Amino acid sequence: MKKFLSLAMAFMVSMVVYSQQALTGGSQLISPETNADNSVTFRLFAPEASEVFITGDFLPVESVSTPMGSYDAPGKAPLVKNEQGVWEFRSAPLAPELYSYALIADGIRINDPSNVYQLRDIATISNIFIIEGGPDGMYKVNDVPHGSVSKVWYHSPVLDADRRMTVYTPAGYESGDKRYPVLYLLHGMGGDENAWSELGRATQILDNQIARGKAEPMIVVMTNGNAAMQAAPGESRLGLAPPTMALPKTMDGSFETHFPDVVEFIDSNYRTIADKQHRAIAGLSMGGFHSLHISKEYPDMFDYIGLFSSAILPHNDSDSPVYADFDAKLKTQFEKNPALYWIAIGDKDFLYEANAEYRQLLDKNGYRYVYRESPDGHIWKNWRIYLSEFAPQLFKPLSR
Amino acid sequence: MKKFLSLAMAFMVSMVVYSQQALTGGSQLISPETNADNSVTFRLFAPEASEVFITGDFLPVESVSTPMGSYDAPGKAPLVKNEQGVWEFRSAPLAPELYSYALIADGIRINDPSNVYQLRDIATISNIFIIEGGPDGMYKVNDVPHGSVSKVWYHSPVLDADRRMTVYTPAGYESGDKRYPVLYLLHGMGGDENAWSELGRATQILDNQIARGKAEPMIVVMTNGNAAMQAAPGESRLGLAPPTMALPKTMDGSFETHFPDVVEFIDSNYRTIADKQHRAIAGLSMGGFHSLHISKEYPDMFDYIGLFSSAILPHNDSDSPVYADFDAKLKTQFEKNPALYWIAIGDKDFLYEANAEYRQLLDKNGYRYVYRESPDGHIWKNWRIYLSEFAPQLFKPLSR
Repeated sequence: MKKFLSLAMAFMVSMVVYSQQALTGGSQLISPETNADNSVTFRLFAPEASEVFITGDFLPVESVSTPMGSYDAPGKAPLVKNEQGVWEFRSAPLAPELYSYALIADGIRINDPSNVYQLRDIATISNIFIIEGGPDGMYKVNDVPHGSVSKVWYHSPVLDADRRMTVYTPAGYESGDKRYPVLYLLHGMGGDENAWSELGRATQILDNQIARGKAEPMIVVMTNGNAAMQAAPGESRLGLAPPTMALPKTMDGSFETHFPDVVEFIDSNYRTIADKQHRAIAGLSMGGFHSLHISKEYPDMFDYIGLFSSAILPHNDSDSPVYADFDAKLKTQFEKNPALYWIAIGDKDFLYEANAEYRQLLDKNGYRYVYRESPDGHIWKNWRIYLSEFAPQLFKPLSR
Repeated sequence: MKKFLSLAMAFMVSMVVYSQQALTGGSQLISPETNADNSVTFRLFAPEASEVFITGDFLPVESVSTPMGSYDAPGKAPLVKNEQGVWEFRSAPLAPELYSYALIADGIRINDPSNVYQLRDIATISNIFIIEGGPDGMYKVNDVPHGSVSKVWYHSPVLDADRRMTVYTPAGYESGDKRYPVLYLLHGMGGDENAWSELGRATQILDNQIARGKAEPMIVVMTNGNAAMQAAPGESRLGLAPPTMALPKTMDGSFETHFPDVVEFIDSNYRTIADKQHRAIAGLSMGGFHSLHISKEYPDMFDYIGLFSSAILPHNDSDSPVYADFDAKLKTQFEKNPALYWIAIGDKDFLYEANAEYRQLLDKNGYRYVYRESPDGHIWKNWRIYLSEFAPQLFKPLSR
């Protein structure tokens, strides 16, 4: 008994000493801390720093001017130092939402060492936190059955490449023999096959909407929309090279033309219902552009189309063969009467006007669509909301 | 044409402006940069900082004293500032390996804003980089067929809980109908079901060893070894609560006792070869402890056992029923002649003595095992090496 205890205790003590730094992340502080009124307190131990700011999407936006134009950036607020060298900031009470932030200490953008929860958006890593208490708790991991999320490689004959995708299969998929409809869910420029499941909380949204009976159980396929890339940064044979926007093959038709390879792979390898009535495609920004064109190029493939803050360029005079005969192809698509053509955008989105123009085109031709306008701009908050609203409308034939 | 171009260009410009901050992460610097001689240069733009250090596992270790004892910590080296406000450090030439580091600016531990590649170890986030050119390139994503990595939830009747695991299925699994052997691969204290696939590069190691014909194609199941937890931090209904070591139910028999639930789930839901000859179990540190006890408690379940830097507490006088009759159960296990009982440890590991004692016990009883001693201590570098060596020895009946 003595020997067991001494060895066990030695191990525990060693692990605790060994892991002390690992466990605390160099910080014993609680940050962020949500207060009773849903304000949030942020803390940083930095006795040597002379100024510390916080920047985040819960602060009022600030307009930033650059030689290329101006854009709205998250606001900034100063932290105040106490005698112990701890800097602190308390936000206003916040509405339920997933928020992101970073700290700026003496001019250096840093992440909060007390908060291990971070998300990468292209090449920027920010801390996140969630204010709970919304009517839905849609972004939380709730005590409901959970789907599986898989990183899967497929071969594209059209692109002559092995490529990576994220596949969500609903709870019960592995153990059952049921067949499921499929939502193809596409990211924006600079994003990748990880964007929707991480920044977009797609896993939590689908788990929760399915568990509540609001959405049909479905497979969700999240591709990499940049045809020049195999996979997300760090996951391809480029190794740990810095992320790039890699514009050349994002919006030139390559991705759209290869898309049947994706559908073929999914229908061959998963228990899908392989017809138009059980396929949806939606995307944000560049992914909205992709969804518009893919659904138009292959009018018998998707019955449900979602354009979220879509990068709409609906003109048929590009060099790419995919964009030839735009008007005629769109006519064909709408003559086939898609079950849902859903357009959503924020009223402050820089693509607002382009979307309004596109809706005029649809109106002029009497093409049926549903329009959803939300506050705010070209941000993940909107895209999470759109997915939460779009998914429940899918694969319900009576809605037609 | 003009309209298309103007809209397209407006979108591109807007995206580039909008994404400028996201893309550069606030930094235009290249860091880390691997030089021709495999030295590495690190850079940080911080004109206002008064001192900047780097700490990483490629620097000589430093002994750190704490009231609870001393331990080896990664070394530290100062960066030097140039006139542009850029701090720089150039390492010695480094051997091929995956390394981790962080910067310390005016006393604050920060991550390198020019490097988006980070890994979380318990509650500490470090940047990583890989020095290539090793004979194997084992940790790289190479141009080989890739397996899928899935985050899957299972129900444990023994623990009365839904729990999360990571499942690697080898390339070709989805599209074929072959059945596969299974390696159960367990993490250490404070780790979780993400540890082996992230810190341990298990996906790359398996992809590469299988592609080279060194390892048999196999399923790898990476569980969460803390019976009190559902899932990794951020992935359970605890939400974004800070990670804990959560000692109470890590080494008390709960995890070991529930393990048949895991095997039952895998054999029911995946195309496994469901017999002892096609099952292996291995783990690091606490996971080595788990592997030792689980393989002993269920002597007909696993033919291949790997104890990596194992937290060995081989005494049979604990209160937990799992550890009762230790000697008799171990005798039973070895009478059944396991195909491989593999013990590996670093010569500087704080568990070295406990492992030596355990080997004496095996020797005294004439129990057959294979011993592998490596340099260094209780670190991921060793565990990646051990997995690279262990996996190729599995499921090859002729080796018996």
